[in-house]
Amino acid sequence: MTAQTNRGGAADANVAFGPRIMELADRLARWSETAAGLTCTFLSPAHRSVAVQLCDWMREAGLITEIDAIGNVIGRYPADDPQARTLILASHYDTVRNAGKYDGRLGVLVALVVAEHLRKLHHKLPFNVDVVAFSEEEGVRFSASFLGSSAMAGRFKFDLLERRDAAGETLAQVMREADLDPKKIPQLARKPADLLGYLEVHIEQGPVLLEEGLPVGIVSAIAGAVRRAVTITGTAGHAGTVPMVRRHDAAAAAAEIVLFVERRCGEAPGLVGTVGQLMVSGGAINIIPGRCELTLDIRAANDVTRDAAVSDIAVEMERIAARRGVAIESRELQRTASVACSPRLQQVLADAVASAGVKPRHLPSGAGHDAMMFDGLTEIGMLFVRCGNGGVSHSPREIITAEDADVAGRVILATLLRLAET
Amino acid sequence: MTAQTNRGGAADANVAFGPRIMELADRLARWSETAAGLTCTFLSPAHRSVAVQLCDWMREAGLITEIDAIGNVIGRYPADDPQARTLILASHYDTVRNAGKYDGRLGVLVALVVAEHLRKLHHKLPFNVDVVAFSEEEGVRFSASFLGSSAMAGRFKFDLLERRDAAGETLAQVMREADLDPKKIPQLARKPADLLGYLEVHIEQGPVLLEEGLPVGIVSAIAGAVRRAVTITGTAGHAGTVPMVRRHDAAAAAAEIVLFVERRCGEAPGLVGTVGQLMVSGGAINIIPGRCELTLDIRAANDVTRDAAVSDIAVEMERIAARRGVAIESRELQRTASVACSPRLQQVLADAVASAGVKPRHLPSGAGHDAMMFDGLTEIGMLFVRCGNGGVSHSPREIITAEDADVAGRVILATLLRLAET
Repeated sequence: MTAQTNRGGAADANVAFGPRIMELADRLARWSETAAGLTCTFLSPAHRSVAVQLCDWMREAGLITEIDAIGNVIGRYPADDPQARTLILASHYDTVRNAGKYDGRLGVLVALVVAEHLRKLHHKLPFNVDVVAFSEEEGVRFSASFLGSSAMAGRFKFDLLERRDAAGETLAQVMREADLDPKKIPQLARKPADLLGYLEVHIEQGPVLLEEGLPVGIVSAIAGAVRRAVTITGTAGHAGTVPMVRRHDAAAAAAEIVLFVERRCGEAPGLVGTVGQLMVSGGAINIIPGRCELTLDIRAANDVTRDAAVSDIAVEMERIAARRGVAIESRELQRTASVACSPRLQQVLADAVASAGVKPRHLPSGAGHDAMMFDGLTEIGMLFVRCGNGGVSHSPREIITAEDADVAGRVILATLLRLAET
Repeated sequence: MTAQTNRGGAADANVAFGPRIMELADRLARWSETAAGLTCTFLSPAHRSVAVQLCDWMREAGLITEIDAIGNVIGRYPADDPQARTLILASHYDTVRNAGKYDGRLGVLVALVVAEHLRKLHHKLPFNVDVVAFSEEEGVRFSASFLGSSAMAGRFKFDLLERRDAAGETLAQVMREADLDPKKIPQLARKPADLLGYLEVHIEQGPVLLEEGLPVGIVSAIAGAVRRAVTITGTAGHAGTVPMVRRHDAAAAAAEIVLFVERRCGEAPGLVGTVGQLMVSGGAINIIPGRCELTLDIRAANDVTRDAAVSDIAVEMERIAARRGVAIESRELQRTASVACSPRLQQVLADAVASAGVKPRHLPSGAGHDAMMFDGLTEIGMLFVRCGNGGVSHSPREIITAEDADVAGRVILATLLRLAET
């Protein structure tokens, strides 16, 4: 029962992950591209300072550190066996504009403090743990997401190197100015045979755990999105002179679409549908809308559920167009497959959650995460942490509590110890 | 039966108003502020050239001409009796941007050719006819409408003299640069006792006459508009992470308002309601709308019908706000009383229409017109002319036919002759 004893020894130590995670998150948030608020996009000076700080903390924690060719910060807590496989424990350190302090960084810091704790106790695991802070997930600077995790997963899209930011610089130029060599990106790809799995802690960015009174939850799947741009062309006209029955109002057709999306996507659990952009083009108070544009974002934990909704929405748009005598064009912008989390890792996480005295709650992730990049390469597991303030994220109002951060740390520690047994 | 004989003599002459009206409208449309299309706003060089041209044509027609202090072009066909009252036969010569050739100008030209015809026959009427081309009705340059007709009606708003155009010049400056003296505006006001009535011919700017196969129609009333700006504040959120039942989506609330306005305003004849502007502020494809703005424009031929609709819409907005947990603010931008046309002038016009072999059709005007300025000062009558191309106006696609213009000329001539008898 040596393993059992070891696990107990590491897990029961008098640790307090929560306050340390909160403090480190506060310290990272000091580097921003803006005087007020937090903005930290790919390879800005603030972003590079955060990378150096993370690397310092990882080194101080006794990890073997590296900043790789795409700017990912990696700290390895090695197994004794040089042939051991590797568990990636990761999230991202870039942010959206005017961001919260925890989106991405919480997962990096939970990984860091747990590895630090194991190292302090000299509690070796039968696998390497790579604490990874991905350099880019949000897609702000180059309108391309997952730059860091796609490189490590061997899925980097090399045509992005020529894409330009708002200042007109290409991704390749920006990298070289930061002493990162785009030519080395192919070497970053991990081999599936070397990987034990991929674990990520992330704030939920929604209200489910908050409303159910749970500090953490186990992600069952990451929803894939279908995004479409819809243009409705009706007939513009004088607001005073065209009788209601003779109108072909593009905004009224748009309104029907908005309400149908809302109703249809309310019919299945885990299905969500959003019209995020909606505008009468060239509208005036006294002109019947001749043109209205809107966007659709439809997601579900499984693609069959989502595609059924997308299909029903398309059929309804045809009906609306025919009934109202307007033209509705719909163009697909994006289609991402949903990614299921590993049942085995979900079970290990659930056991760890239960051992922390919390009811295991499985829930889908509506947001995309770095974990998606590792789908098919290795088993994926994700732990969500309760998001305060009604579940708001991508906002300075994004908050978590030190208590919940602590639970996350303890659950991840327990998960590593359980994985060590198997 | 002298009058009868005279009437027959003037009315039965071998006249062809239509082709001449079309030709003059084409010639006026050559002056534009833009290289392509027609734009002729208050006191632009194009606008001043049109005034001079109209004044020339009126003088050539034998009328006593004047360009007044606000730029109205007036051509009087005087009665023999110096004490006679005056019938104003008017419309406007300014245009919207990228306008059609007939909005406003049709009424001026019908008045001109009819007065020209009477003058040619030396057919005197027992009242003066003032052919008036108002300088400003559309409100484009100074975001203020009816500058010309309000001055003649004694309702000019003098605070507008300090309002600035897009170039930063005040209305008073612009007038003085055109040799018009703002100080003389008060002298333009006509005395009610001097007026016999006000008649205006205008294109319908809608599809009613077109769909009923009628060249002209008699306006029963001019609708007054209530205009409101509505702001909906919901809760922004991540499009992937907030379940449908937990959303407070500002765009979905807006969609309900749009459809309620459409449904409610379809319930009464002559009632129309338009959401002309609609926009999710700061919208993104992956963000649940937290704010949506829209405008309301509600009109009816009578204010009771209109106000009942406005009130029902306000009640429904409260219901939507309560049910969805969003805030809906509604601010009134404008409230104009509707103006009834004179039953007597409507009857004279209807008789004249019937005498032209056309079924008299009375219909409300949803658009505002210069005629409104004379409400309460004198009796108002308006004749609508069929608008082609589905009833489109405020567009280069606005068309009428020479045949319909001819009917309008003959109806106005017959109207003047009938008024001469009473």
